[in-house]
Amino acid sequence: MAEGRAGAVRGGGGHVAHRLLPGAYRDSLVLMQLQRRLEELPGVEEAGAVMATAANRDLLAERDLLPPGAPPGRPDDLLVAVRAADRAAAEAALDRVEELLAIRRAGGDGSSEHRPRSLAAGLAALPEARWVLVSVPGRWAPGVARDALAAGRNVFLYSDNVPLAEEVALKAEAARRGLLVLGPDCGTAWIAGTGLGFANRVRRGRVGLVAASGTGAQAVACGLDARGEGISHGLGTGGRDLSAEVGGATALAALDLLGRDPETEAIVLVSKPPAPEVAARVLAAARRTGKPTVVWFVGAAAPARRVGELRFATGSVEAAELAVEAVRQPRAEDGAGGDRGRSDRPSRSSTSAGWMRGLFSGGTLAAEAAVGLAPFLVPLAANVAVPGVRRLDAGIKGHTILDLGADELTAGRPHPMIDPAPLVERLREAAADPETRLLLFDVVLGDGAHADPAGRIAPCLEEALAAARAEGRELAAVAVLVGAADDPQDRAAQAERLRAAGALVASSVTEAVAHAVDACPVAADDLPDPVDPAVLAAPLSAVNVGLETFHDAVRAQGAAAVHVDWRPPAGGDERLARILERARRKDRAS
Amino acid sequence: MAEGRAGAVRGGGGHVAHRLLPGAYRDSLVLMQLQRRLEELPGVEEAGAVMATAANRDLLAERDLLPPGAPPGRPDDLLVAVRAADRAAAEAALDRVEELLAIRRAGGDGSSEHRPRSLAAGLAALPEARWVLVSVPGRWAPGVARDALAAGRNVFLYSDNVPLAEEVALKAEAARRGLLVLGPDCGTAWIAGTGLGFANRVRRGRVGLVAASGTGAQAVACGLDARGEGISHGLGTGGRDLSAEVGGATALAALDLLGRDPETEAIVLVSKPPAPEVAARVLAAARRTGKPTVVWFVGAAAPARRVGELRFATGSVEAAELAVEAVRQPRAEDGAGGDRGRSDRPSRSSTSAGWMRGLFSGGTLAAEAAVGLAPFLVPLAANVAVPGVRRLDAGIKGHTILDLGADELTAGRPHPMIDPAPLVERLREAAADPETRLLLFDVVLGDGAHADPAGRIAPCLEEALAAARAEGRELAAVAVLVGAADDPQDRAAQAERLRAAGALVASSVTEAVAHAVDACPVAADDLPDPVDPAVLAAPLSAVNVGLETFHDAVRAQGAAAVHVDWRPPAGGDERLARILERARRKDRAS
Repeated sequence: MAEGRAGAVRGGGGHVAHRLLPGAYRDSLVLMQLQRRLEELPGVEEAGAVMATAANRDLLAERDLLPPGAPPGRPDDLLVAVRAADRAAAEAALDRVEELLAIRRAGGDGSSEHRPRSLAAGLAALPEARWVLVSVPGRWAPGVARDALAAGRNVFLYSDNVPLAEEVALKAEAARRGLLVLGPDCGTAWIAGTGLGFANRVRRGRVGLVAASGTGAQAVACGLDARGEGISHGLGTGGRDLSAEVGGATALAALDLLGRDPETEAIVLVSKPPAPEVAARVLAAARRTGKPTVVWFVGAAAPARRVGELRFATGSVEAAELAVEAVRQPRAEDGAGGDRGRSDRPSRSSTSAGWMRGLFSGGTLAAEAAVGLAPFLVPLAANVAVPGVRRLDAGIKGHTILDLGADELTAGRPHPMIDPAPLVERLREAAADPETRLLLFDVVLGDGAHADPAGRIAPCLEEALAAARAEGRELAAVAVLVGAADDPQDRAAQAERLRAAGALVASSVTEAVAHAVDACPVAADDLPDPVDPAVLAAPLSAVNVGLETFHDAVRAQGAAAVHVDWRPPAGGDERLARILERARRKDRAS
Repeated sequence: MAEGRAGAVRGGGGHVAHRLLPGAYRDSLVLMQLQRRLEELPGVEEAGAVMATAANRDLLAERDLLPPGAPPGRPDDLLVAVRAADRAAAEAALDRVEELLAIRRAGGDGSSEHRPRSLAAGLAALPEARWVLVSVPGRWAPGVARDALAAGRNVFLYSDNVPLAEEVALKAEAARRGLLVLGPDCGTAWIAGTGLGFANRVRRGRVGLVAASGTGAQAVACGLDARGEGISHGLGTGGRDLSAEVGGATALAALDLLGRDPETEAIVLVSKPPAPEVAARVLAAARRTGKPTVVWFVGAAAPARRVGELRFATGSVEAAELAVEAVRQPRAEDGAGGDRGRSDRPSRSSTSAGWMRGLFSGGTLAAEAAVGLAPFLVPLAANVAVPGVRRLDAGIKGHTILDLGADELTAGRPHPMIDPAPLVERLREAAADPETRLLLFDVVLGDGAHADPAGRIAPCLEEALAAARAEGRELAAVAVLVGAADDPQDRAAQAERLRAAGALVASSVTEAVAHAVDACPVAADDLPDPVDPAVLAAPLSAVNVGLETFHDAVRAQGAAAVHVDWRPPAGGDERLARILERARRKDRAS
């Protein structure tokens, strides 16, 4: 304490005093506990304990704990301020700062151990560590994460306020090395039964999580636990992973990894609504796992209750329920259920381009199809208003859905459910376009509708499909047939007529969506190299850099961990730190 | 045909000729059939048959079927044009127009009957008719509908292009008279087993539909039929009914009516996403029915899988499945299931104002709560990005959700899951506000989180609830407790501590949403007078004004119907029609 600078003034309602402890970096949790302990001392009204950044000094000043003229410190100086009844009480409290910091460690279970002071030293102390847990301030986190990757370790990156460009670069580096970066801003993960960050003590089991959301993952995990199921592994991605910029780098790697993991029988994917093109790629990756996958995009309209092996949930409870259902029900398509672990990794040239052309006489059927296909077929445009679907314009490139019953198309003519002529005409046009890969249309039966819509549509369809075959083009047709068994048109005969003409006949939009998604696969030409499955091997061992509680929690769960007594590089001097960092990068590159 | 004006020119690829038949109004379906029959005649290349409005004349001109100099007609003149190989073929075709119009009726089953020429005459011919079906052009439809209401009849209004102000006025008039207006732009309804408009032949049953969507209702009805269930009644509302302008007038009346209908055991409500304030009122009306109600807002994110007796579906198949499940499963809360038909109509002063204050440490929990509450608690603002939820601003009036872990609130301090101090502080503030009616907050357990969050929160909560009681204020508290049984904090003890302090403890956001919706009822101070249940009585009888096929279909289903041989008033002269209309209104008022 001898080297601490100090000051004291009257401020607020009492006597204010502060001390600066140079180079005494502590994490925010330690500081919170110090602050609380100071406030319990006799005569102390309020206390603050922060690292002496400009922003933190402003916060103290706002609370009247720091006079404007107080001497500046460096970012890794510890700044402690108290307001007390009188000067003696304030000084007495500040005199006890080091003692209070020491008390704090008594609860920890590694307090008496030797503490490495660098990541390298930490890894030397626990060479089998496959993971590095990083929770230092965001300004310094990418540097630590980069060092961890360079050392061949996977990274759990709790820190927030990491620049987006750093996230992209870190994830690209991880992909090159076949490693995982969970985060930044990853609150929660479970690896081989051990929780990282904020994690509940849930049973180990057969459901894998991929979550761009910390408390979302916790809620689902607790829901599974309450229903008697557990987590194989839970891989956080960080909240920005499914943005257009990051492109779902971690989610794609994690889905691929869980697809190959023999312990994982079903997957739950949680995120806020992804960027459209990322949603399409991530859902395609989920389908490639071949495992039942529950998708909970918080706040997005579900495209359907179920599309193939994908189930869409609207909340954490439902996500857990659907996952439980998926692992407990034998799947019809399995022989003996033995190939559930198989992951179809498509060859890089297995998909070809082509657009879906949706033509509907029913407005709600068009809207339901747009809602259902929007996350899968990107870009999608429609002349029905559906959130996330572009407005259909002339000359648009992409998948399209046209409601032929829209006011602007029916002026002066009967509704297309009465007269299918406009549908037939546009089907012919769409089929002739070499870029069309799928024709999707509806046929609505019942009183009021045309007496034989299939009979009107089928000849044109037969001809179009034959022409495409003759040209060697892939062209498929899916019809949504809405009708009751007793409808005057004879539903069974209508279905048969459409099938004979070459269409797949679906009895609902949901069923048609599943066919359409199969017919228009997402290109898989830029898949990263797979992550080494060893990352998921038990037992977990980790080197922790940052919040000490995360180290303590890993130990408390019986896993191996070493805590690094980390300090900001260059004493927190950002300019100097940048120079050092550049020098190290050059070093590494040479 | 003697009075028909005619013309002939060379145009397009052949000889073009046309005829004008004054005062020969026909509906679009008849015109389509005439056109098709003309095109089957020898030498005819293309034909057009339209009412001679300016817009229709333009359409013919675009198809090169009408030279620019052709003489104008009046809107109720029938204009027929053909392009044929030569002049003789064109004239021969036009000579057969009346004959072809006559052939058409041979298929109808009322062709030889006397046809009333006005709605009044139609009603005189079928005085027991409770319904008038209106499908005349939108320009004339409100007048016919108004006459029907004035005669004490309910209206099925198929016509589109009816001005919004007319819709509002018609529905207000219907409410005053205890009648229903289904539409405008209502494609589909089922009344007491008879389908109106575009309707499938589905079995009669115990599921009621309220649908702002025609093909949506058809898809759900067919889904129910395929699963062995049927429709009690299906009430279309028109696509704009749930807009802010119309305010759900028909949907609210229909829900109330089906709530009181003894044949209806469950309800399916279909619409595109309503205006937020309308969604809240319509969902409140659905809850008041006391019957299981499946809600399918096409393209909206479901707030949860289930909230009380409301179930949210993502597609037509799921809507049908959920309705089947609802009618087949005995409800736990029923004694012998006997009071399923009861509808709680709240007294007009049963609700008091007050806001929900949501305070969350988990970002995804905050988002899930915002998604879940958005359709119920209006207006709702939050500092998490959720579609349809306003951004939280200082001084905002309404329900609010605050994510305390948001970056802007955690700078320089530990995450609120580690240190619940910010939650405690804001709970105290919110509870002290006399406008607060409900406190909603989360408590997240597990490694990494605070060792005793309930212990930190409970004292403040106890105090706040006691203070509100002392002031005679309604104040409730709901806690979302996310934790596993083995979490270090002891979940059961944490729940008990919160309960002892006066909170309802929910184990998920979905459960909390249900509590919150109960605690913050929507004001029901502007309910319309109930509709007379006689509207749903069997057998259906109706007077049809407009598309003759709708009359034929009603007859084909065995119900009573009379078709009115309707002509536009004042020979289609809009100015004269307006003068006549004003005179009639004065007449009626005096």
